[in-house]
Amino acid sequence: MSLLKFGLALENGPPPHWAKARMARYIVHNSDWAVFASLSSREPFKGFPFASATSISDGYDLASSSGIPYIYKMSGELSVNDWKLDSRAAMTATLAQGDYCSMKHMDPQDPRCARVTLTGSIIKVKANSTEETFAKEALFTRHPSMEDWPKDHHFFIAKLKVENVLILDFFGGASQVNIEDYFSAKPY
Amino acid sequence: MSLLKFGLALENGPPPHWAKARMARYIVHNSDWAVFASLSSREPFKGFPFASATSISDGYDLASSSGIPYIYKMSGELSVNDWKLDSRAAMTATLAQGDYCSMKHMDPQDPRCARVTLTGSIIKVKANSTEETFAKEALFTRHPSMEDWPKDHHFFIAKLKVENVLILDFFGGASQVNIEDYFSAKPY
Repeated sequence: MSLLKFGLALENGPPPHWAKARMARYIVHNSDWAVFASLSSREPFKGFPFASATSISDGYDLASSSGIPYIYKMSGELSVNDWKLDSRAAMTATLAQGDYCSMKHMDPQDPRCARVTLTGSIIKVKANSTEETFAKEALFTRHPSMEDWPKDHHFFIAKLKVENVLILDFFGGASQVNIEDYFSAKPY
Repeated sequence: MSLLKFGLALENGPPPHWAKARMARYIVHNSDWAVFASLSSREPFKGFPFASATSISDGYDLASSSGIPYIYKMSGELSVNDWKLDSRAAMTATLAQGDYCSMKHMDPQDPRCARVTLTGSIIKVKANSTEETFAKEALFTRHPSMEDWPKDHHFFIAKLKVENVLILDFFGGASQVNIEDYFSAKPY
């Protein structure tokens, strides 16, 4: 069972819109999946942006939330091939993934239907490291079926090394969140 | 009121997984929003991929579904600034946006939790054209609040000119859908 229906803890609403770092952490922590963008490595679209949805976890519970999106990917997947050539990436998640926005009668594009975009690089997490143990627990707790994914498909754990955080959660356009504020903020 | 709760018509399930063109059209038509990727125009992340969620419509009902994702964007938005410099784009949507996958106990990354990625270019739709009239009706029917968005924010209608269609809806990896099959398929 997934901890959070639709990937968002609706019983605990989002932080106030002026708490931008907390809002960013809230969305990242409560999203079971996000869309990752890469730079395509496939002709005839090499160099085009590419985007695909992937399950994520930044921690198995509120207390262990790290703000770092961990992913469990298969060697040979399209995005993985892209990142082998160029590790630059963006990840986005939105409250529209849950029913918060529709319950509030907000269009998915309404600025109050908050969304976050993280920019950085995809990095493989070192095998048998403390970080891999943490990331595996974070992912497998939130995505229990991952334990049963075929061993011969060469799944590995990677993360988005977050270098920039943009949040849109109110009128007036997106705001940049200081990276230290992002990592020190509570996800609620 | 939006026609489709969570953006997906769950009362009518998706097509069978082997009908890849129909599945692509089904996801595009039934998604109220999608994530668009662009090539960032902002330093110090110029050239990185960027991604953000945007409301879409390819038609106001099943019969008018065109397979072309139309968007209603504001001059000055981050993605719009990116596309002014480089119009290349990708768009992705997933059944995980609705509750189909969770109802079927499928992880968002399960290949049967189908997802589509369209690649192409963002093009502004010509003002006062037949296409603009169609796109406006398609968007405003599905996203009624758009009519009230502030007139002085210079919203305009654009579309993704679809050049490539990738669908992942079953084990065995993503499949390319022939572009003519995509446009001639039914969205159900």
